[in-house]
Amino acid sequence: MANKFSRISLILPEIKKLLSENKKDEIKSLFQEYEPIEIAEMLKNFDLKEKVYLFSLCNIDLAADIFEKMDKDDQIILIEAIDETRKRNILDELAPDERVDFFEELPEEMVARFLNVMKKEEARETRELMRYDKNTAGGRMTTDFAYVKENITAKEALNNLRKTAKDLEMVYYIYILSKNNKLVGVVSLKDLVLAEPEKIINEIMHTKFITIPVNMDQEQVAKKIARYDLLALPVVDNGEMKGIITVDDIIDVIKEENTEDMYKVSAAGKHIKNYMSMRPSFIAKHRVLYLLIFVIMDFFSGTILKNYSFVVRNAIALSFFIPLLMDTGGNAGTQAATVMVRSLATGEVKLKDIWKVLRKEFIVGIMVAVALGIVTLFRAVLLQGNPFVSLTVSLTMIITVIIATCLGSTLPLFFKRIGVDPALISGPLITSIVDIISLIAYFEIAIHLLGS
Amino acid sequence: MANKFSRISLILPEIKKLLSENKKDEIKSLFQEYEPIEIAEMLKNFDLKEKVYLFSLCNIDLAADIFEKMDKDDQIILIEAIDETRKRNILDELAPDERVDFFEELPEEMVARFLNVMKKEEARETRELMRYDKNTAGGRMTTDFAYVKENITAKEALNNLRKTAKDLEMVYYIYILSKNNKLVGVVSLKDLVLAEPEKIINEIMHTKFITIPVNMDQEQVAKKIARYDLLALPVVDNGEMKGIITVDDIIDVIKEENTEDMYKVSAAGKHIKNYMSMRPSFIAKHRVLYLLIFVIMDFFSGTILKNYSFVVRNAIALSFFIPLLMDTGGNAGTQAATVMVRSLATGEVKLKDIWKVLRKEFIVGIMVAVALGIVTLFRAVLLQGNPFVSLTVSLTMIITVIIATCLGSTLPLFFKRIGVDPALISGPLITSIVDIISLIAYFEIAIHLLGS
Repeated sequence: MANKFSRISLILPEIKKLLSENKKDEIKSLFQEYEPIEIAEMLKNFDLKEKVYLFSLCNIDLAADIFEKMDKDDQIILIEAIDETRKRNILDELAPDERVDFFEELPEEMVARFLNVMKKEEARETRELMRYDKNTAGGRMTTDFAYVKENITAKEALNNLRKTAKDLEMVYYIYILSKNNKLVGVVSLKDLVLAEPEKIINEIMHTKFITIPVNMDQEQVAKKIARYDLLALPVVDNGEMKGIITVDDIIDVIKEENTEDMYKVSAAGKHIKNYMSMRPSFIAKHRVLYLLIFVIMDFFSGTILKNYSFVVRNAIALSFFIPLLMDTGGNAGTQAATVMVRSLATGEVKLKDIWKVLRKEFIVGIMVAVALGIVTLFRAVLLQGNPFVSLTVSLTMIITVIIATCLGSTLPLFFKRIGVDPALISGPLITSIVDIISLIAYFEIAIHLLGS
Repeated sequence: MANKFSRISLILPEIKKLLSENKKDEIKSLFQEYEPIEIAEMLKNFDLKEKVYLFSLCNIDLAADIFEKMDKDDQIILIEAIDETRKRNILDELAPDERVDFFEELPEEMVARFLNVMKKEEARETRELMRYDKNTAGGRMTTDFAYVKENITAKEALNNLRKTAKDLEMVYYIYILSKNNKLVGVVSLKDLVLAEPEKIINEIMHTKFITIPVNMDQEQVAKKIARYDLLALPVVDNGEMKGIITVDDIIDVIKEENTEDMYKVSAAGKHIKNYMSMRPSFIAKHRVLYLLIFVIMDFFSGTILKNYSFVVRNAIALSFFIPLLMDTGGNAGTQAATVMVRSLATGEVKLKDIWKVLRKEFIVGIMVAVALGIVTLFRAVLLQGNPFVSLTVSLTMIITVIIATCLGSTLPLFFKRIGVDPALISGPLITSIVDIISLIAYFEIAIHLLGS
C-alpha cells in the first residue's frame, strides 16, 4: 500500500543513519530492495560528496539503472565527479537508448570525450544511434534486444537466452534472425517456456509479425504499439533488425505528443522541456510570435469598427456588447475546434466524416445559439432600453455562435484534408476569424433595424 | 514494413476468395497469422451472416480475442447472432476486464441474461468486478494473473506456470501468494528462467514490491506504472491480491485523461466517447452550460462599458480597439494557463515553485507586453490620428498582457493549492476575467490622457 512518497521518506532516515555509521553492506542490501527511480530521487537529498559515495556502493548494473533515472543536470554533475574507471563502466553499461538521450543534451566536446573512454563496440553503436532523427523509430529504439539464430531447438534458445538475458531490458519477445541478420520470426518468452524442448524454433515462431521502419515518425510508432497491445515492436531497416521500441518508451511519446497538441490548440508556442530552467526571454520569444499573428489578424476588426463608427456614434449602446459577442463567438468556436482536433487525434472521427460532422455541428450550433440568444436578449434589455439594439445583439449572438461552431469543427478537418496539422486550428485563430464575421453581421443588422 | 492498412487490405481479397470456395481450413490457418485487432477490422467488410460464419471458424481463444477488439455495436449484434453454446463459451473466455467493459455498456436485462448462461465462477467474478468504480484500479484491473504459492522451488513454479499460462494475458510477472492469498512477493519470468531450478522461490522473489490499492484513482495508477517503467502492477485490498493492471490498460487511461484535460482547458464540456454516434442535443447541452458561465461573466464588461460610455462618446476611436485588446489579453492568458496546466499534469512544475513561476512569468509578461505595445501603438496611429488615443491603446495593451500572463500562470497553481483541478482554469475563464480588468484600465487611462 506504500505510495511513492512514503517509500522514499521511509528509506531516507535509515540511509542517513547507516551513512553516518559507515555501514556499507547494510546500505548495499537496502538499495537492492528499491526501484532505481526511488534511489535516484532519494539521492537528491544528499550533497555531491555523499552522492558519489552512495553511488559507488551500487554495483555497476544498479548504478547505471539509477543514473538513467536522474535529471539531466544531476547526471552531468555526477558523471564528472566520479573517477575515470567508474565513469567508463557506467557509460558502457547504460541502455543504448538512454545513453543517446543523455548525450544529445551535452556539448559536442563532452560527447567526444565520453565516446573516447567507452568500449569501442559501445561507442560505435552510440554513434550509429545518434545519427537517427530523435523523433523517429531509430531515435527512440534500443539496440539491446533478445535474439537467437534460426533452426535451433526451443531448449537451445532458452539456454542461449539464459546467457544473455541478464543485461537486457526486455526479454519477453525473442527475435529470430537469419544468418545475415534479417528478421525472420518472433517468439514470446511465454511460447518458449511452454514449447516442447526439442521443437525447432522455426516451427513455433510467428512469421507474420509487425515491424517498424527505422525512419517512421514516433507518433505513428506510438499508435501502432497501442493498437496491437504489444510490449515491444522490432525496428527494421531493409528487413535487417536494428532494435526494438518498448511500450514504456511509447508512454513518454504519447505524453509529449499530447503536450504538443495542447500547446498548439491554445497557440502557446512550441513546447520546450524543463520550463523551470528556461530563460524568460526564450519563453517570451516563442509566445510573442503567436500573439503577433492574432494581433495582426485583429487589425481587420479595427478597420471594420472604424468603417461602421457612424453606427456606433448613433447608438453608443451597441459598444456595450462588443466584448460579450466577441468572447462568446470565440468560446463556441474553441469548443468545437478542440472536440474535433482531439477526435481526429484519437481516431474517433475520420476525414470521411466531414459532412456528417458539419451537419451535426450545425444543429448543435443552432441549439446553443438560440439558448444564448435568448439570455443575451434579456441582458441587453436590462442594460439599456432600446428594443432594436437588444434585438440586434441577440440576432448577432445567434449568427455568431452558429458560424463559430461550424467553422471550429470543420476547419480542423479541412486542415487535415490538405495535409496540415489540424491542431494548428487554435482557439485564438478561430476567435480572430469569428470576430471579423461577427462585427460585420452586428453592424449590418444594426443598420437595418436601427435605420442609421 | 507492412503497415496496418496494407496488412488488412492484403488479407481481405484472399479471405473473400477462400470464403466463396468454402475453404475452411485455409481460412483458419490464415487467421492464425494475424493479430486479433486486424481480424476484427477485416470482419467489418462482411455482412452479418458471413461474419458469424467466419467467426465460427476461429477457435474459442482467438474468437474471444477478436471479440474484445470489436466496436461496442458490432459486439452486441454479433453476440446475439451466434448460437447459445458458442455465446456461452465466448462470454466465459473473455478477459475479465474486457468482459466488464462490454457489460457496462449494456442494459441491465441483457447483462443478467448473459451472466445467467455463463459459468458460475466467471459470473461471480464478473459481478464482483462490476462493483468497483470504473475509474479506479478495481474497475480497470483484470483478475487473470499468474501466481504460485510460496515455498516451492523455481522449477515447480515454472511447471505450475506451464499449466496455467496459456489462458493468461500477462505471464511476465508471477505473484507469490501466502496460504490466505496475501501477496508476499513477485518474481519476473526472466528471474524464474534464469534461477537455479532447485532454489526456493522465496529466496529469489522481490518482497518490497509496489502495490496499488483497489480504490486508487486511475490517473494515479497511470502515473505510478509510467514512473516505474513496469509492465504491470498488482492491485491489493488489505494485502490480499485482487488483480493486476497492465501497461496497455494504462495507455488508454493516459489518452482519456489527456482528452479530459484538453476539453477542460478549452471549456469544451465533458468528454463523451463516440462523438459520431451522439445526439446533437446531448452535445449542445454540455457545451451551452460552459458558454453560459462566461456569458454571465461578460455581463460585467457590459456594465463597465455602459458606465464609461461618456468616454467612448467623446472619443469614438477608443471603440475601434476593444476586440484587439480583449483578444490579445485572452490569448496571452490562455498561453500561460495552458503551459502551467500541462506542466502541473506532467510534474514538470510543482506547487512549491509558485513564486518562481510568478517571477518568471512576470518577466515574460513584460517582454511580450512591450513588444505588442509597440506594434499596437503603430497600428493605432495608422488607424486614427489622435496620439492620446494611440498612447491609451498601447499602454492598456502592455498592462493587459502583463496581468493576463501573471493570472494565467498562477491561477492553475492556486487552484491546485486549494485542491481544485487546475485544468478548470480554461482559456475562456481567463479571457473573461482579463476583459474586466483590461476595460477598466483602458478607460481610466483614457480619462487621464484625454481628459474627458
